[in-house]
Amino acid sequence: MGQLTYLFSKWRNTARTYGFSEYDGPPLEPLELYTRKSGQEIVGQLYNFEDKGERSISLRPEITPTVARMIAGHARNYKKPMKWFSIPQLFRYERQQKGRLREHFQFNADIFGEPGVGGEAEIIALLIDTLRAFGLTEDDFRIRLSSRQAWQHFFDARCSGSQDADGFFQIIDKMERADRAGSEKKLGEFGVSIEEVERFIREGEPTEELREVCLNLENRGLGGFVEIDYQVIRGLAYYTGTVFEAFDRKGEFRAIAGGGRYDRLVHQVTRGSVDLCSLGFGMGDVVLSELLKARGLMPEFFNSPDVYVAIESEDYRLETMQLVQNLRNRGMSVEYPLSKMKPNKQFKRAMELKASFFAQLDSQDPKQVRVKCLKSREEKVVPLLNIDRLEDLFVD
Amino acid sequence: MGQLTYLFSKWRNTARTYGFSEYDGPPLEPLELYTRKSGQEIVGQLYNFEDKGERSISLRPEITPTVARMIAGHARNYKKPMKWFSIPQLFRYERQQKGRLREHFQFNADIFGEPGVGGEAEIIALLIDTLRAFGLTEDDFRIRLSSRQAWQHFFDARCSGSQDADGFFQIIDKMERADRAGSEKKLGEFGVSIEEVERFIREGEPTEELREVCLNLENRGLGGFVEIDYQVIRGLAYYTGTVFEAFDRKGEFRAIAGGGRYDRLVHQVTRGSVDLCSLGFGMGDVVLSELLKARGLMPEFFNSPDVYVAIESEDYRLETMQLVQNLRNRGMSVEYPLSKMKPNKQFKRAMELKASFFAQLDSQDPKQVRVKCLKSREEKVVPLLNIDRLEDLFVD
Repeated sequence: MGQLTYLFSKWRNTARTYGFSEYDGPPLEPLELYTRKSGQEIVGQLYNFEDKGERSISLRPEITPTVARMIAGHARNYKKPMKWFSIPQLFRYERQQKGRLREHFQFNADIFGEPGVGGEAEIIALLIDTLRAFGLTEDDFRIRLSSRQAWQHFFDARCSGSQDADGFFQIIDKMERADRAGSEKKLGEFGVSIEEVERFIREGEPTEELREVCLNLENRGLGGFVEIDYQVIRGLAYYTGTVFEAFDRKGEFRAIAGGGRYDRLVHQVTRGSVDLCSLGFGMGDVVLSELLKARGLMPEFFNSPDVYVAIESEDYRLETMQLVQNLRNRGMSVEYPLSKMKPNKQFKRAMELKASFFAQLDSQDPKQVRVKCLKSREEKVVPLLNIDRLEDLFVD
Repeated sequence: MGQLTYLFSKWRNTARTYGFSEYDGPPLEPLELYTRKSGQEIVGQLYNFEDKGERSISLRPEITPTVARMIAGHARNYKKPMKWFSIPQLFRYERQQKGRLREHFQFNADIFGEPGVGGEAEIIALLIDTLRAFGLTEDDFRIRLSSRQAWQHFFDARCSGSQDADGFFQIIDKMERADRAGSEKKLGEFGVSIEEVERFIREGEPTEELREVCLNLENRGLGGFVEIDYQVIRGLAYYTGTVFEAFDRKGEFRAIAGGGRYDRLVHQVTRGSVDLCSLGFGMGDVVLSELLKARGLMPEFFNSPDVYVAIESEDYRLETMQLVQNLRNRGMSVEYPLSKMKPNKQFKRAMELKASFFAQLDSQDPKQVRVKCLKSREEKVVPLLNIDRLEDLFVD
């Protein structure tokens, strides 16, 4: 939980510096929201079921279709472009693998209503700065940048016999991990040789848009994180323009994040009633956590109290409650024994908990509080009625 | 989302001052986790279904059974007592009503392994301080404190012909909202008159434990929030000792929070392998939000940037990106036009967004930044390379 809270706080804080507003949506959605675009094939990966009202429901596998629907319903209430983020819990019905669990959290950031490449630069800069916030550097990760349009031109020029651009893109998406002969055979069905494809990946000209995005990022000092790489195309069918993925430099992990432009999704989800160009990315908690641990960048989390309040004798329990309450009223986190405990065990407990201060009523005069700073071992006595934040006692 | 975030941050911060550690559990659980204790009747209220693996599953309606199981599995790794909290999203399959939605969030705080009344006092003090953190006072709410043991004694003494204490408790729980004749008839089946029950509610002696809890809370200065009230008994079957509910003083809303001691639940959930006394409470977001709004205590939320960076001419867009990035690197939240916008529209946008500062490159010398404090209307010029947090510029 400490680790998750850490990821969430860095995600939220970076999104805030970029002026993104947080939203959330329902964890359950009509199955149709996912099948409308992706077809019935998608159902195999979903945690879907029929509910008591005989509705076909799915636990959300991603939040993009949800936010597209939400945005479409409220688009006229907001100035464009809208910059929104969320940290949804997502679900898949799949065998668990390293870096891919059935249940995970994902940082999602999207811009709606921005047609220009300024949108791409902004969203990719946010992605880079989010990873930098964890202490990751140019040596740790890179953004592989590509273009669905470039691939669409390739497809239109070389696969003129086919209408199935999506099918072709799926092969490109899987090429890196698939065996070459298999890819060669599948590409053959589109009338294109694997050598042609490999040459385009190696030597294809960056589009004008990709060049502009890179120039913008260079001016932010973020150019070193980005490479144009046509091997990347993204699996999801709804992308329409620039696409990108973040990978660790050593290539030890799955993609840390991925995203792109999806200008037709809002139109599709709303059956044509709203049209809003969109782009964004998702970053899961699982691969990011693995990477941070591998690079020694995941902190240790330990829930230490500010002060341990001891109760030397049960005779003082009730008076001590006033001390406990006063300290908490001032925002300090306070531990104390909820029932009778030997005094030496209480001190030991304070040390185990790594409390900053140890405090108790003076046994000679229970209107006085003895406070010990456990770091400096310094001790002070203060009247119970004057008690305030204890750190203030030890400032000279 | 602003309101939810506000509730969550107050919940988290109060739990922290009390030394509670945050946990989370799975949103999906085996249906059996809920039916094992509560029987098949509970299923009518659950959002349960059969999953693809033909497992009987439910979206969690509460988190107490989940945490009882989690605690049982890890109890030996922790020092007792353990103080844990969570903010789970919960689900019911019911018609929605005021204060009771199908999907909501709940602040849950529990203490495990503390048999003494110090546990009750601590958990009730946390409940009171959580509500106080929102600005609610003694005039706004009260804690109604009761005892399952007191009612058990009543049941044993007056309903000697029956073994169904739970059935009897259910009638008491519903009495306040039910019609009197109906309750009278049902109580008759237990061989007890409604007058006897009403007299016990009015005149029943506080148990020794309840008196100790009240004394402890009085010593914290929280006595004015608490009343012993045997009308309260709590509906859930798993309570075994002290029970309590928080209500608004005017009686306009459903219970704000409720809880109690449930010493046998861990034992039941683990089929007897672990035994750990427990107590805690839950506080939902829905009734609390309604109450805060009614009392004028829910703040307005608006996502203002620290600074709006303007781009007077597209010639300066790329250089301006350096300014944007430097400000964000220093933790400031920055808005700027993602694509070409008229200068006067940019200033208008900055005002709409209630930005604190307005900044742009000097059109005469783009190595200089003109910064305007939108509150004082003061203006300063700083070299782009020296830019730091803008509020520091306006401190004298």
